[in-house]
Parts: sequence; structure tokens; C-alpha cells
Amino acid sequence: MNTAIHAALQTKIDQKTKPLGSLGKVEAIALKLGLIQNTLSPTLHNPAIVIFAGDHGVAHAGVSAFPQAVTAQMVFNFLRGGAAINVFAKTSGMQLKIVNAGVAEVISDFANHPDFINAPIAQGTKNFASEPAMSADQAQQALEAGAAIVRQLAAGGCNVIGFGEMGIANTSAAACIISRLANLPLEQCVGRGTGVDDAGMARKLAVLQSAMTLHSAAQSPLDVLAAFGGFEIAMMTGAYLEAAKQKMLIIVDGFITTSALLVASQIAPVVLDYCVYSHLSHEAGHRAVLAYLKAEPLLQLDLRLGEGTGAALAYPLVVAAAAFLNDMASFASAGVSEKSAS
Amino acid sequence: MNTAIHAALQTKIDQKTKPLGSLGKVEAIALKLGLIQNTLSPTLHNPAIVIFAGDHGVAHAGVSAFPQAVTAQMVFNFLRGGAAINVFAKTSGMQLKIVNAGVAEVISDFANHPDFINAPIAQGTKNFASEPAMSADQAQQALEAGAAIVRQLAAGGCNVIGFGEMGIANTSAAACIISRLANLPLEQCVGRGTGVDDAGMARKLAVLQSAMTLHSAAQSPLDVLAAFGGFEIAMMTGAYLEAAKQKMLIIVDGFITTSALLVASQIAPVVLDYCVYSHLSHEAGHRAVLAYLKAEPLLQLDLRLGEGTGAALAYPLVVAAAAFLNDMASFASAGVSEKSAS
Repeated sequence: MNTAIHAALQTKIDQKTKPLGSLGKVEAIALKLGLIQNTLSPTLHNPAIVIFAGDHGVAHAGVSAFPQAVTAQMVFNFLRGGAAINVFAKTSGMQLKIVNAGVAEVISDFANHPDFINAPIAQGTKNFASEPAMSADQAQQALEAGAAIVRQLAAGGCNVIGFGEMGIANTSAAACIISRLANLPLEQCVGRGTGVDDAGMARKLAVLQSAMTLHSAAQSPLDVLAAFGGFEIAMMTGAYLEAAKQKMLIIVDGFITTSALLVASQIAPVVLDYCVYSHLSHEAGHRAVLAYLKAEPLLQLDLRLGEGTGAALAYPLVVAAAAFLNDMASFASAGVSEKSAS
Repeated sequence: MNTAIHAALQTKIDQKTKPLGSLGKVEAIALKLGLIQNTLSPTLHNPAIVIFAGDHGVAHAGVSAFPQAVTAQMVFNFLRGGAAINVFAKTSGMQLKIVNAGVAEVISDFANHPDFINAPIAQGTKNFASEPAMSADQAQQALEAGAAIVRQLAAGGCNVIGFGEMGIANTSAAACIISRLANLPLEQCVGRGTGVDDAGMARKLAVLQSAMTLHSAAQSPLDVLAAFGGFEIAMMTGAYLEAAKQKMLIIVDGFITTSALLVASQIAPVVLDYCVYSHLSHEAGHRAVLAYLKAEPLLQLDLRLGEGTGAALAYPLVVAAAAFLNDMASFASAGVSEKSAS
């Protein structure tokens, strides 16, 4: 990015009435926001959370604690305003869009809901334990659909965005994607998801190990995406790529959304310049992928829900960072003495 | 606290449409808030940050990177609205009160400022490197003054509060208080404060080691408070005790404010039941005292500013926790399937 604005932003930050660096990661967010918007006075407009929902054929291999029907039930819950992300988007002052990226059930209700985008690629992915989750064409379609949604939001003035997801068994897809693309042992990437017990965990790991072998030829980001899915992860990948093009600040949520970011970053590494990381999730594997991305999360709340809840909970810190840069006094304007030479 | 309400709150939390425990510390805040207010539907009213400012005689022993004049200058900055805490209190929707607990300079301006409480115990403490920072009478006066301020806020409907502080050299006072009352080695409690260099750090440690020996007879919470000061820490101690009596949720800020909480908790341990811990500060020693209190901080932003900035930045999480408990759907109300028996 622009080095002149970088230096000017750092000077503005360092002249604020506080010891140098004493606002830690808040200063880092402010700097990133200024760099993205190429200004000393960044502003936040129409902040949005977009939830992508999709079903996974691998759910039928017994890798999740919840039945597949819950994906559609939770989409209805989002649309009725009853889920955690509805509550947190509201307290954080963010708009919420819900995307049917490929839920197994056909969703015919809510056709006129203003925040619902009903654009499934198919009724769930295939079971990647026995075949690729989706075709290369479907992966491409999903990338484009995700990008189109972000373009639409950008046209409405949105310049700060977080992505969320819903999809029973999607920690399985994410674990395989991360293991392959970050070259991490599968065991480091597999966790308990929504809460499988020890027996379920052993079954999940065995299914995924076998699938990793089955799809050993899938190595490029797009091949890995198609092999393991899901449609919500693929749409999010396209959404990340477009959000960077639109110069949005991206607030990254948890494990699944970071797997999509990993795919996006291997297609266009520049996407990472637009990201702040909302939280370190309780899901094993999130720590590993964040370390791979050299990402420092803001919150450590032991969340493991997904839906974009971490991104929504972290958004007030972004608001605070922008206000810090714009509204706080400098040593000169406030008449405060600087640090003594010692 | 009431065990019936505890069980009912936990049931309400567990019936929300999410995997059990998947909102981590947000659930813990919601539970604490419900317990404090003895209700399944807690509400937040007139949230406040109160900053206590005071000067420290030990500043003349060369333990700080900034000159003592900065304490008063920052009080003026708070009153003019230019400091970090002004910005963050505003973005978090909290009222801000500024208390002159004992600044060295006589403050005669701002007499009519609606948020200024000009109630100094004295013009700074004595230098605890050579004598007690304050008399037992002064410590008692400060406790009462802090309690009176919180009573006033409670009368205005405030039921959630965070304390902040300003006082050049107050990391020195806090380090000695924590070392003595938590029985921790002084080296674990002393950090760089607002930014002393290596030589300054060595000087600070030597001064404090000698002071710990000088005041080795001070062992009770009140004696330790009087020995090391300062007036802002003593007023905060009284404020914590009263906030618990008034059944407020207390959002604990950083290193200095936790030293005051430690004093308060050794006077009345019940005060800890009212606390959530906003952040883990960059100041060495904060981690040690949080571990002593078995406290789990919400944010890890490498803050080391004080002023109550961590408490203000964490307040949106408290708002989110209350909304979670009040507004999120249950499995039954949303028609979502629960976890399978596996």
C-alpha cells in the first residue's frame, strides 16, 4: 500500500495524548483502516454481516453432533431474528444478510424477506468421503455468486464487512481445506465442532483421514475447495476476494470463515491486507490456521458458534479505533507534555 | 448468591438456539448479570466510567517516563473531551465522570463542568520511598469519598460501572500493593508503566524494593493502602466496595484498577462476585494479579494506558451478553432440533 499515507497515519497515531503504542491492537486497526481507505480520517458506513448457509453431504457420515435438518432450521431462525447473530448484529449496529448458498431443503418461505438472498448452487454438496463435494463449475459459480453479493453491498455504501456461516458438518470441510492448503497435520485441524463426544470425534477423524487420501490429487486452492466444499465456504471465498477489491475492511470470524479466507488468500494474497481477526475460537484448528496466517485475534471469548458472532462482537472495537484516529486530541492540541528524555 | 435463580438462569442459557456453552465468556457475563440483578431478564442502565486522578510523591524518585505535571494536564484533557477514554466512553455509550482525588496542582478551572468532581484529599501523596504515602485518616476519607460518588451514581439509576485512573507513577504504587497483598515477588509486579527505558526500569525496581523494606510492617489492606497510596487508588477501593453494595456489575480495567480491587477484595471478598475483567494489559504484573484473583479477561489488546479504556472497550460485550439472555430464541420457540444423543 501507499507508503506516504502509512507514515502520515503513524505520525498521527503517535501524536495522540497517550504513551507511544499504549493502545496496542486498537492502534493497529486504526492504521489498517486508514491504509485501506487511503486517508487520515477513515469512516465506517453501512457495516454488514453476511451469513452463508449450506449443507454438506459428509454430514451423512456421522461427523456432527446435530442432524442436517438444523441447517435449514437455523436459516429460518436467522430470518425470524432469533439467533445469536441477530442479537449481536443488532447490538453492534450492523445490517445482516442471510444467503442460502446450498441448503439441502428447498426454502420457499421468506421470498419477500428484505435480508434473504435465496441463491442455492445445489441442495447440499455431495459426500466428500466418497466423491468431490462439488464440480469445478459449481465452485466457480459459487465464487461469482459470493462476489456479486458483496458488489451489491458496496453499491449500497457498505465499507466494512464480516462473514458468517451455517452448515451442519462444515467444521469437517474446513478442517480438510486447512490441513491441505496450510500443510498442517489433519489432527491439528479437527475439533469437536458443535460438540461431538469422544466416539464421535474418533469417527470424524477417521472419515476425514480417509477423505484426505481419496482427494490427494486436489492441491490447488480451487481443486481443494471443490473436493471438500461446501457451497457456503466457496461463496465466502468469492466474497472475500470481492471485499478486498471493493476496499472494505474485513472482520474475519472463526474457524470456518478462516478456511474460506485461506482459500481466498492463496488465490489473491492481497486479500489479507484488508483483514482484522475478530477472535480466537474454542475450535481446535483455529489457532493453527491463525498462526499460519500470522493473524492476531482481538477477542478470546471461547466462542465456537460461527454465524459471524465473533465478527459482530468485535465490530465495536473497529468503531472505537476509527473514533480514536478521528476524535482524540494530540499532545500539541491538548497542551500535554510528552515523555521525558531519560 | 441465590441458587434457585442460578439454576433458572443456566437453564435459560442452555435452551438458547446454539450448541451448549458455545458462546463461552458471553454466557458467563450473562449469568453473572442475572445473578447480580436476581432476575432472568437483566437490564443495563446509565453505564458509567469514573476516572480517579491523583499524584504520587514517589514520582520525584524518578520512577516514571513522564513528568508529574502530566497528571493535571490529562485531567484537563479529560474535561475537554480529548483523551482516549472520552472517545471510547462515547463510542460505548457510557457517561464519564472525572474525579480529582488528589492531584498535585490545585485545579480551579472547570468548576461548573457537569462531569467533574473536584474533591482532593491533598495535593498529591507523600513520597513512599521515605514515608507513608498518606495517613490512616486520609485513607479512610478517600474510601468514603469513593463510596459517596458511587452512591450518587446509583441514585441516578446507574447499574453498571467501570473505574479508570490517571496518576503519574501510579504503576509504582500498584506494584507494591499487589506484591504485598497477593504475596507475589516484586519483580513480577513491576513493569515499564508508560514506557521507562532499561535504566529507568532498574531505578524503579531499586526504589520500590527499598520502599517495600521500609514499609514491611504494613500488612493489612488499609495499612498497605496508606503506605503506598495513592489517593486515586484509595478512592477507587471505596468505590468498588460501594458498587458491590449497590449491586452494580463492575467492569474491571487494567493494572492500577486491579490493585484497588485487590485491596477492596481483602476488605470484603464478596466484591469479586460483581466483577467482570475487561482486558489483560501489556503491563507486566497485571497477568500475575489476574491469576491471583482467578480472573479471566475478555480482551487481549496489549493496552497499557489506563484511564478505564479497557473497561469502556469491553462494555459492548456486556451489552451483547444482556441482549443474548433477553432476546435470543430458545430451541422450542424457534423450532430448532437439539443435539442428537450419540
